[in-house]
Amino acid sequence: MNLADYVRAVPGFPQPGVLFRDITPLLLNAEAFRYVLDALVEIAERADAESIVGIESRGFIFGTPIADRMGLPFVPVRKPGKLPAARMSVEYSLEYGESQLDIHEDAVARGQRCFIVDDLLATGGTARAAAKLVELIGGNVVGLGFVIELDGLQGRRQLEGYAVHSLLHY
Amino acid sequence: MNLADYVRAVPGFPQPGVLFRDITPLLLNAEAFRYVLDALVEIAERADAESIVGIESRGFIFGTPIADRMGLPFVPVRKPGKLPAARMSVEYSLEYGESQLDIHEDAVARGQRCFIVDDLLATGGTARAAAKLVELIGGNVVGLGFVIELDGLQGRRQLEGYAVHSLLHY
Repeated sequence: MNLADYVRAVPGFPQPGVLFRDITPLLLNAEAFRYVLDALVEIAERADAESIVGIESRGFIFGTPIADRMGLPFVPVRKPGKLPAARMSVEYSLEYGESQLDIHEDAVARGQRCFIVDDLLATGGTARAAAKLVELIGGNVVGLGFVIELDGLQGRRQLEGYAVHSLLHY
Repeated sequence: MNLADYVRAVPGFPQPGVLFRDITPLLLNAEAFRYVLDALVEIAERADAESIVGIESRGFIFGTPIADRMGLPFVPVRKPGKLPAARMSVEYSLEYGESQLDIHEDAVARGQRCFIVDDLLATGGTARAAAKLVELIGGNVVGLGFVIELDGLQGRRQLEGYAVHSLLHY
């Protein structure tokens, strides 16, 4: 399986000069989607994950089938204004301006082994914020899994000390 | 399994006077999550679904594991500015103001039997827009599945002519 065959490059999205990696063709191909999930489940199993954390919203796409297959809890990390109950927040920098992610305080048990999932590792700011959130509420980040990593943006530097896994590199 | 035990009622969210139905406890309980997915898969199978359509972003949470289990394509219906390739849009009314949903034009084959998934059926505006989008690009909506339906908001009236299925009613 050559995963890259199922990732569409869209020039100029969301702004001029950016080459967007579109995973929707991968989602349309059940065999490719299964291949990705098989690989991420294997990584999460090796990490002895006890909980799967998905980052809104493409992290939900890959995170929930992994949680379903492994019979583990699924924890959504969400954009501001979405989680209704007691929560913790982390602010982080994007290329342009600031953003914020939230997690419910009761989403993780103390010491629980959490595996974080997202579609893409770019600058690493979002993933780092998600890892901080898990730790803020007492969880133990045992790994992060991405479908795609944009090596040139050096997101791994933001995630030093964590086990970072990506299936496809650009 | 009493599903309602895993739905948390949060008064005053997102605004005073609203009682928010929070599904995150359900996601934390692997048995309850599996129960919901079993039920929705059974409905989608009876509808002979050939494609699973999830509405951003909680529809992704339930839609992708269903697609994974059934070995079917997954189609994301997304908020504006998220889908990079050629797309169709539908505008619809919310309680306050207008909103829009997008779908990629190549997401569905002509006549393909599409099953739409979301967490909650409230006023029905979002679900109706998603159904219209599927039809705009040539798909055949064979059913809509929700975890929760807020009966008092009469969302079914917006979905006349469609097969609407909900697991839990308030």
